[in-house]
Amino acid sequence: MKKFVNDPANFVPEFMAGVLAANADLLEGNLEFQMIKRKTIDASKVAIVQGSGSGHEPAHVMAVGPGMLTAACQGPVFAAPPVDACYETIKAAATDAGVLVLVNNYQGDRMAWDMACEMAEAEGIKLKQFIINDDVAVQDSLYTVGRRGVAGNFFVMKAAGAAAEAGADLDAVYAVAEKVNANVRTMGVALTSCIPPQKGDVIFDIGDDEMEVGVGIHGEPGRERTKIKPADDITKLLYDAVQSDLPFSSGDRVALMVNGLGGTPPAELYVVYNKAAKLAAETGLTIARNYVGEYCTAIEMAGVSLTMLKLDAELEELLAAPAETACRIF
Amino acid sequence: MKKFVNDPANFVPEFMAGVLAANADLLEGNLEFQMIKRKTIDASKVAIVQGSGSGHEPAHVMAVGPGMLTAACQGPVFAAPPVDACYETIKAAATDAGVLVLVNNYQGDRMAWDMACEMAEAEGIKLKQFIINDDVAVQDSLYTVGRRGVAGNFFVMKAAGAAAEAGADLDAVYAVAEKVNANVRTMGVALTSCIPPQKGDVIFDIGDDEMEVGVGIHGEPGRERTKIKPADDITKLLYDAVQSDLPFSSGDRVALMVNGLGGTPPAELYVVYNKAAKLAAETGLTIARNYVGEYCTAIEMAGVSLTMLKLDAELEELLAAPAETACRIF
Repeated sequence: MKKFVNDPANFVPEFMAGVLAANADLLEGNLEFQMIKRKTIDASKVAIVQGSGSGHEPAHVMAVGPGMLTAACQGPVFAAPPVDACYETIKAAATDAGVLVLVNNYQGDRMAWDMACEMAEAEGIKLKQFIINDDVAVQDSLYTVGRRGVAGNFFVMKAAGAAAEAGADLDAVYAVAEKVNANVRTMGVALTSCIPPQKGDVIFDIGDDEMEVGVGIHGEPGRERTKIKPADDITKLLYDAVQSDLPFSSGDRVALMVNGLGGTPPAELYVVYNKAAKLAAETGLTIARNYVGEYCTAIEMAGVSLTMLKLDAELEELLAAPAETACRIF
Repeated sequence: MKKFVNDPANFVPEFMAGVLAANADLLEGNLEFQMIKRKTIDASKVAIVQGSGSGHEPAHVMAVGPGMLTAACQGPVFAAPPVDACYETIKAAATDAGVLVLVNNYQGDRMAWDMACEMAEAEGIKLKQFIINDDVAVQDSLYTVGRRGVAGNFFVMKAAGAAAEAGADLDAVYAVAEKVNANVRTMGVALTSCIPPQKGDVIFDIGDDEMEVGVGIHGEPGRERTKIKPADDITKLLYDAVQSDLPFSSGDRVALMVNGLGGTPPAELYVVYNKAAKLAAETGLTIARNYVGEYCTAIEMAGVSLTMLKLDAELEELLAAPAETACRIF
């Protein structure tokens, strides 16, 4: 296993301790619950929390900070956080203005957060829950009823976080999350599998000349297994799936993200962006904002996902607002 | 070859076209010479240029922009840029205040830049050349006489770039580069090789249970080939080599960088940072600034390097100054 790990059972709390050590002025943690929160929480503003399996960094704890999440918790690699961690995260973040709980659509996460939300509400905490499901690859999947939540999650966190920071109330912050999710679409492709530290082995087998089109961020099957194609052809596959789904139409202003799945280096992401930008121009789209980097990974999987978000004036302003988190990619 | 490439011969200009497309407001390029420059160059300020083989992104063209480089050119993957590209880059960047040419210490790069500098000086361009050699792993190497220039290069670009932006003259900007290089040390470790697109195969063989300690960013041999160790032990190997070399001593304020070599995901970098921060505390160092991410890669190599820079008030201020480049990691 070619990884920087000590005892695999400690992988998650150890990387979280590193995040805390590197951001001691901004963040504090409760590693018993694998939870990280802002050091300073404004009680008058809506809090936003999220939590899911680890292995998708910078999501989720590296997105905690002013302008993004208020707190987040991590499960084991590729497994939902336990209910008590979700509950403690809501409690740690809760403000008078209420809590928006952002959940990526996976059955494990939804069960944990549903119970945690019930427990928190029973204690009088005001909250709303919102489900993110931007992945166009498959309708139902190995771990979901309905579509999966993947890299489009970044835009929900960013826009809702900016709205909360600006003082919007819980209904208004929820409406922002709803607007982003309604207008964002993603599809990914994997060239390799990846190795969760505690498993110590790949999560799926794939031939030396094969790729998985529409892969999930836990290696779930996508639309098809095909031979590897040139980068431009792969990009067109992803672009067409994403563009046609909303659909994105001539005249739309969009945010375009090329997200690396963990093992694909920066230069290759820009090869993909180069083609995606041309395809967007052919459709008549204006790329008002672009994002090329690692936003939602699958540990060290070689692969990319392509996300487009249709913008309006409100969303453009929210995406442009400042944020300060452990990752510096906004 | 599990990569996002079209024709491997076009890999570099294609990724550069992507960088330009994503930063059209900030950058312009001349892809005939694989060169990218700032759109707006202030003739009254010192210009800073660099250029080396591709495959180390975000170095070098993704570090072009206000507060960092003025222009940069790329060679093929892991090969020096041709003399004419270096010459055109100097010419495109040159200002009345002069040009600082930053060269990482590799024989190929030095030959190309030496000739380009001579040609530019013959045309009356005022310039100084500075050689970066922060890698403590080996004294001479496969491609160098003396030490190699690796991730410490980032701090030279950042600090010299900030000094130039603030209006320092050529001698003063040179002195900043000299101060950074005198106070920065790096060592890396590789768990895997990597595949240059045009080669289509790994650049060295390494066993499933092996690592290369002190590896170069082109896969050059380092100090020793050993069995993979736990992350904390690897981190201590790197830290001890870096700390003892300057040496860094109790009471020093430092910048600490954990740099991913391209195939190592964010969570693993933070596992390494977590241990490095503890070791720095044991030495009595204060980590005034930290950098965890991809700053100087070796395509998709799984591995990390650890860099420390001893700070003074001037360097702290220069590192904290704003910069705007294709990569958003400052």
